[in-house]
Amino acid sequence: MTPPPTVLAVATVSDPDVKAGYATDESVGAQAPEHFEVVRARSLDDVVEVMRWADATGTPVVPQGAHSSLTGASVAIEGGVVLNTEGMDSITTIDPLEGYAVAGPGVLNKALKDAVAAEGMFYPPDPASSAFCTIGGNVATNAGGLCCVKYGVTGDYVRALQVVLPGGEVIRTGHRTAKGVAGLDLTGLFVGSEGTLGVVTEVTTRLIPAPDPALTVLATFDSLDAASAAIVALRRERHLPSLVELLDRAAIAAVQALADYGFPDDCEAVLLVQSDRPGHTSEDVQRYAGLLTDAGAVDVAVADDPAEADLLLAGRRALSPALEAEGPRYLEDVCVPVGRLVDLIREGQRIAAERGLEIVMAGHAGDGNLHPSIFFDAADPASRERAHAAFTLIVDAALGMGGTITGEHGVGSLKAPWLPRELGDPMIERQRAIKALFDPRGILNPGRVYWS
Amino acid sequence: MTPPPTVLAVATVSDPDVKAGYATDESVGAQAPEHFEVVRARSLDDVVEVMRWADATGTPVVPQGAHSSLTGASVAIEGGVVLNTEGMDSITTIDPLEGYAVAGPGVLNKALKDAVAAEGMFYPPDPASSAFCTIGGNVATNAGGLCCVKYGVTGDYVRALQVVLPGGEVIRTGHRTAKGVAGLDLTGLFVGSEGTLGVVTEVTTRLIPAPDPALTVLATFDSLDAASAAIVALRRERHLPSLVELLDRAAIAAVQALADYGFPDDCEAVLLVQSDRPGHTSEDVQRYAGLLTDAGAVDVAVADDPAEADLLLAGRRALSPALEAEGPRYLEDVCVPVGRLVDLIREGQRIAAERGLEIVMAGHAGDGNLHPSIFFDAADPASRERAHAAFTLIVDAALGMGGTITGEHGVGSLKAPWLPRELGDPMIERQRAIKALFDPRGILNPGRVYWS
Repeated sequence: MTPPPTVLAVATVSDPDVKAGYATDESVGAQAPEHFEVVRARSLDDVVEVMRWADATGTPVVPQGAHSSLTGASVAIEGGVVLNTEGMDSITTIDPLEGYAVAGPGVLNKALKDAVAAEGMFYPPDPASSAFCTIGGNVATNAGGLCCVKYGVTGDYVRALQVVLPGGEVIRTGHRTAKGVAGLDLTGLFVGSEGTLGVVTEVTTRLIPAPDPALTVLATFDSLDAASAAIVALRRERHLPSLVELLDRAAIAAVQALADYGFPDDCEAVLLVQSDRPGHTSEDVQRYAGLLTDAGAVDVAVADDPAEADLLLAGRRALSPALEAEGPRYLEDVCVPVGRLVDLIREGQRIAAERGLEIVMAGHAGDGNLHPSIFFDAADPASRERAHAAFTLIVDAALGMGGTITGEHGVGSLKAPWLPRELGDPMIERQRAIKALFDPRGILNPGRVYWS
Repeated sequence: MTPPPTVLAVATVSDPDVKAGYATDESVGAQAPEHFEVVRARSLDDVVEVMRWADATGTPVVPQGAHSSLTGASVAIEGGVVLNTEGMDSITTIDPLEGYAVAGPGVLNKALKDAVAAEGMFYPPDPASSAFCTIGGNVATNAGGLCCVKYGVTGDYVRALQVVLPGGEVIRTGHRTAKGVAGLDLTGLFVGSEGTLGVVTEVTTRLIPAPDPALTVLATFDSLDAASAAIVALRRERHLPSLVELLDRAAIAAVQALADYGFPDDCEAVLLVQSDRPGHTSEDVQRYAGLLTDAGAVDVAVADDPAEADLLLAGRRALSPALEAEGPRYLEDVCVPVGRLVDLIREGQRIAAERGLEIVMAGHAGDGNLHPSIFFDAADPASRERAHAAFTLIVDAALGMGGTITGEHGVGSLKAPWLPRELGDPMIERQRAIKALFDPRGILNPGRVYWS
């Protein structure tokens, strides 16, 4: 592998320990390759330089933000360069009048949210990794989060992009005006392209007026059917909740094993529901509480001040650390019609029982987006194989219900085997052809999303 | 030109008078070519058949809905086929739980709105042509309307598409689940592609809960600066208005010339503002009225019941017929930053005065999307030339203010000369290359959007 050009010497990481820190992401079993370089870009020029050189030399490039991807999309590639853009972390504009902000790809999701909140504005997308994931990574995966049931996903809040293509060409997509329909919408094409088309170097995000601090309702159910009825009732609400999260029996047990969050140990499901409607969060959560009771909730707790609301959500927030603590797992991300969500949970429970596996199910119930965690023993290849088989069965089940293989994490390496099944081979070929237009030598994230 | 295949004989229009009705759209000076065919597709199979035949024979195809385009995007092409999809007008699904509807491309915008309203749901996009334009045409142009200041544009409400490509391949883009990020977003690519990539045969639209019937505030201003201050204040409102329309002095005169809508004849601008916030429209319009007064409105009228609100809006609705009645005109569609809107109006007025033209300016002030009408005498080529020169100057002015050549009408033939200036030649080449992937023989709307 030819070393990067001199001008980038200063941005190339030489310390092997530091380098190793950029080699993998958060995906299961991610492994560092033997030979790779890491460049920490500090500017557009750095990115242009790397993309020029990489294209000329045919060097694979892995665009990388906080490498918190759960699918292997930002793991280093043998003989390739990790092009990390965390250092491009300036917010250059916040314009409440025109309703947009301009941010570098390395700006943390939470940093952008906080900065625009100080101007009375709201940038809704809120992946669970908000505190440490970057806007560039959010754009690459079209990240979702907890807010999507009311507010939609990252793509709904991207107005324009600056992107560097292989070879170093800098393009701008979209527009900063409120409307604009001149030519094809390439912004949408880049959002969710997982680093396969270009390297995002600037993001113009749409902003909306800030909501109120959210209030919370927590309801427990002794049957999944009752929980399903509650979700259906909430979906028919005129004022959509800003959050509808579900934990199944195994998820509740996992959280309670970490600390006592007050969840009863004999219930089938917990639903957490929020409203952030300006001036009416209290009225909303009271009404939601009534709906949840009518749907058959065993117990309903309403937090009618923000501090209490935060406490009620603590159990949900403890889920990720609780699951981390349990050991290695496949983390699923299927999305099904909301009306089929509990069918999918039941199918997961059936698979767990049949195969002797621990499968914890939780997710964004209001969107039908479930994140089953399928645990295995890292020291036991057979256990891992069983877990992977279960993972496969759950993806199959979701597809069979009219769902998708990925609601918000992306395809990466983890889901690449299923993509042809969801899209069909002719569509895969068409998407590959689009990729080839932007990346004719195939240097960007090769082997990811579309199998080589 | 080879005639269409036998199976389509029944769908091909033979009566010359009927055929002539499909030859043009609503764009200025649209002229029917000498030789063309019209096929009225009734089904997916019809479209597939035409696209197979057209690709094999290299026959140009103009996809067409209600041919209400203002840019020439749906005018027949010499030696080509107009492929009209108005007859594919079924709404096959309205699913309030999953939040979507499935409609044929020929469904009228208003028909879809009404059908989903009956289920308590809302499909926001509302071009002024709502009563007669089709969803297929709305998708083709990424149509906007009056609601966009609060709700966004057509693209924000399209979840999935079925599209027939040249050669007859049927593809599906997007997903029906609330979230889904598997592969590239081709839905966004087709939305706004103006019939250059494929023929949309089915649209899955996102639906949201229905708002309240709107209430209206009408304010008159004796200076454009005061009107601008009012627009800025409204944009900073936590509860965004669902409509912010502006009429300039010339627009007010045009409306008053049609009938007395109660507009004073000595004011510089009228602003119409609506709220449809459930349970709070009255509170909102009262607050908006206060903002408008504070910004310097001379007179403010608040309609606090829906019937009265409708009356207040009558003057705005009369604008289109009033302008139609005045004679032929170039109809502009530029969009600039909201903070520059009155600069653009002043520039238009300066051009009108300098060149002895009548230019009426009105539009979606909350989005910075202005629709100047530049009148000319059809019998006088010099007058038409002067009008076109003014049209050019206004587009130039908008681009100079960081705006776009088209906010919502599209490029078509009318704006094609400016597209390279807005996008740059390298981007045009890239977009052409994308087009060529879907339409390698260039049979779809040739010469539109991208000049041949």
